[in-house]
Amino acid sequence: MGGFSDPIVTAGVAGLPALYAAGISPIEVAEAYLARIERLNPAINAVVELDGASARAQARASARRWAAGEPLSPIDGAPIAVKANIAVEGLAHTAGIKAYARHLAQTDAACVARLRAAGAVILGTLNMHEAALGATNDNAFLGRCENPHRAGFTPGGSSGGSAAAVAAGLCAAALGTDTMGSVRLPSSYCGVVGYKPALGAIPTEGVTALSWTLDHVGVHARSVEDAGLVARACGVEAPAPAQDRPLAVLDFDGLATLEPAVAEGFARTLEDLSRAGWRLEKLRIDDLDLGALRRAGLLISEVEGGIEHRRALALDPEGFTPQLRSLLAWGARQPPAKLAEAYRLICESRRRILALARLYAAILSPTTPQQAFAFDRAVPASQADLTALGNVLGAPALALPSGEASGLPLSLQVIGMTDGTTQALAARLSEALPSAAVPEAFR
Amino acid sequence: MGGFSDPIVTAGVAGLPALYAAGISPIEVAEAYLARIERLNPAINAVVELDGASARAQARASARRWAAGEPLSPIDGAPIAVKANIAVEGLAHTAGIKAYARHLAQTDAACVARLRAAGAVILGTLNMHEAALGATNDNAFLGRCENPHRAGFTPGGSSGGSAAAVAAGLCAAALGTDTMGSVRLPSSYCGVVGYKPALGAIPTEGVTALSWTLDHVGVHARSVEDAGLVARACGVEAPAPAQDRPLAVLDFDGLATLEPAVAEGFARTLEDLSRAGWRLEKLRIDDLDLGALRRAGLLISEVEGGIEHRRALALDPEGFTPQLRSLLAWGARQPPAKLAEAYRLICESRRRILALARLYAAILSPTTPQQAFAFDRAVPASQADLTALGNVLGAPALALPSGEASGLPLSLQVIGMTDGTTQALAARLSEALPSAAVPEAFR
Repeated sequence: MGGFSDPIVTAGVAGLPALYAAGISPIEVAEAYLARIERLNPAINAVVELDGASARAQARASARRWAAGEPLSPIDGAPIAVKANIAVEGLAHTAGIKAYARHLAQTDAACVARLRAAGAVILGTLNMHEAALGATNDNAFLGRCENPHRAGFTPGGSSGGSAAAVAAGLCAAALGTDTMGSVRLPSSYCGVVGYKPALGAIPTEGVTALSWTLDHVGVHARSVEDAGLVARACGVEAPAPAQDRPLAVLDFDGLATLEPAVAEGFARTLEDLSRAGWRLEKLRIDDLDLGALRRAGLLISEVEGGIEHRRALALDPEGFTPQLRSLLAWGARQPPAKLAEAYRLICESRRRILALARLYAAILSPTTPQQAFAFDRAVPASQADLTALGNVLGAPALALPSGEASGLPLSLQVIGMTDGTTQALAARLSEALPSAAVPEAFR
Repeated sequence: MGGFSDPIVTAGVAGLPALYAAGISPIEVAEAYLARIERLNPAINAVVELDGASARAQARASARRWAAGEPLSPIDGAPIAVKANIAVEGLAHTAGIKAYARHLAQTDAACVARLRAAGAVILGTLNMHEAALGATNDNAFLGRCENPHRAGFTPGGSSGGSAAAVAAGLCAAALGTDTMGSVRLPSSYCGVVGYKPALGAIPTEGVTALSWTLDHVGVHARSVEDAGLVARACGVEAPAPAQDRPLAVLDFDGLATLEPAVAEGFARTLEDLSRAGWRLEKLRIDDLDLGALRRAGLLISEVEGGIEHRRALALDPEGFTPQLRSLLAWGARQPPAKLAEAYRLICESRRRILALARLYAAILSPTTPQQAFAFDRAVPASQADLTALGNVLGAPALALPSGEASGLPLSLQVIGMTDGTTQALAARLSEALPSAAVPEAFR
């Protein structure tokens, strides 16, 4: 994803060391992003808390390290922002919930601490769907986050601010979280790379839990290379050569209804991959019910999320929207047998599908059954049907931009087996895919 | 564990091919075990349903294969019996619950089918604690199973019949199931090897579930070699050389109260291992609460077990003992938040402890905090405190006989990382341990 007028933004993460070598300093890089945030963020409301003074201090420290020839890592100096459910010392740690408006993080989340240890410049926090439990990012407390590709359209969620900020060039990369698709889904709607590493590959300490069973921390970036660099700074393993196995194309006939534009785009993508020499095989998973898996994940999230927020719900119920309160109260009312059946479905599906998936290099599908839609349209229930599979499996999964239809992004989901092989595979796959367009108003 | 007067029984599983080579046929082997069952089982009530005609037919088929020089596997002809919660075609599949007294299995459980495909002779089914939810095997429906080492003493449970039958030489090996220790615990009380492979290593299809989160199928045998042969016939991986890492000795100070005889026996075992050249390091796991893990596992079992038996509970409540009915009803009454917290504790403990355990070849502890006890003694709540750790981790774990105190067996628990390395390690460890005594009345 090149196409920005400013070469600093076009450089993303991986291109920054070349700029430093050409005499541009991390201080100029940070200033470029801070200026863009000031100028462009009001149109989309992706950034919710900016820490300019701290970002400038971090950038100066990075500049000194590069000048001394001692950068901490390849991402030293890269300006990164994080979803508002990830603790950044001194900033409000709200998870998009008003009840936590005055809750300042005392320490960095483990993933933020790792980014800082790698020299990244932490810019601030990003908009999200309230409590990460929903996928429109129409947040009453933080304000609605807009899709940079079209005003009045959802960026998706729950990490909508993260995907929108990366697509609009307001940061070089961003962290998000993904319980049923919350990194990949908004990446699909906003046309950026969304990388959810395997369960536990990035620690969740210091992240407001939605579900300790399904939560993953992930990365939004403008290329697979950038996403991999940031993920590795957070502790994810390095790319590794994959075995020569075919790609499985998930046969979702009867499993998911795709919007026509998504179905046509996916067919074109498969043709592109075929032409580029990839071996594709249809994979039918018997008795797979994506809707049932998504509903099981939702129930687990409502119960586990309700436990996470139990104290605040009791002390300040008005600090939660009635919609969220009602979801969490519904979870708390379900009989334990229903919750146990949900865990059972997840656990048994994981074992069964992983046994099949091991025969392939990866499983391909569209990332979402639909493209971004207008805020005034009814929210489709199936938004996370294709992404939730990656959380059920606990397997690494990426959303890769794969062109556009009617001016809105399309996205290919790649579910792999290990983080090393999946990064290497995604890098090669993305070479065969059309590059993502920069949203016009943000070039 | 040699010491039987009959060389056929002393041969266990691994020694049978040498007997066949010496002209003893699988038919004589089967007849020897059938005769022992007829003569010796009444004293302990370990075998609950015997299928002599089928066993003889299987033995004849095995004899033909060995005569033709075409055995199906190294265990072809080995007489094996299975716990009553594992389906054997045509036999009652009761899980020790009276409500299922007339429930005949239509097909073999997957693990039994694998044993048959390897040529094993399936003798019949074995006593167990009702529903596998308890550890004394004082079963009102099937009758009490006695410890072969001492009349009036529990063999442990829930796979009490499996451990007792193997210790008494009524079968060459047995299958059991292990949700919180149900293979290893009775193996400890009866002085046999109990091997619970990693979660999912032996399929659970056709096994009455107690908990699909924690259930494992495992093997009881008179040596590590025998247990490994049977486990591998069920699909478990082959032994693999382990990396040179120290053994972790679980520091359970404040975590579990050991009977003095168990504590002294364990100290002697560690001295034996030290003298044999093993490197031992104390492993303290901060904030570990074994009792809390066991209670979480129990709650999950009560809820998940209640779902498994929902239909029978509704149709024939009197087919369950009042004790079991009350445990399952209690599970069904708990709020979902309590169940979710139990899953959370299991899931978070697994991740945290595995990260520590990876630095060691294995974690050692006594298998149980106590030795076998008299049926009229109060049942200690802590019976499964040390074994449940293996189920929480989903890691391979063995109970290894480690001598005796006051004429009753002692046992060492070995929790490893992979099935391959754990089998290889356990075989070497057992060389340094005193061999188990054959119960006097069964020699």
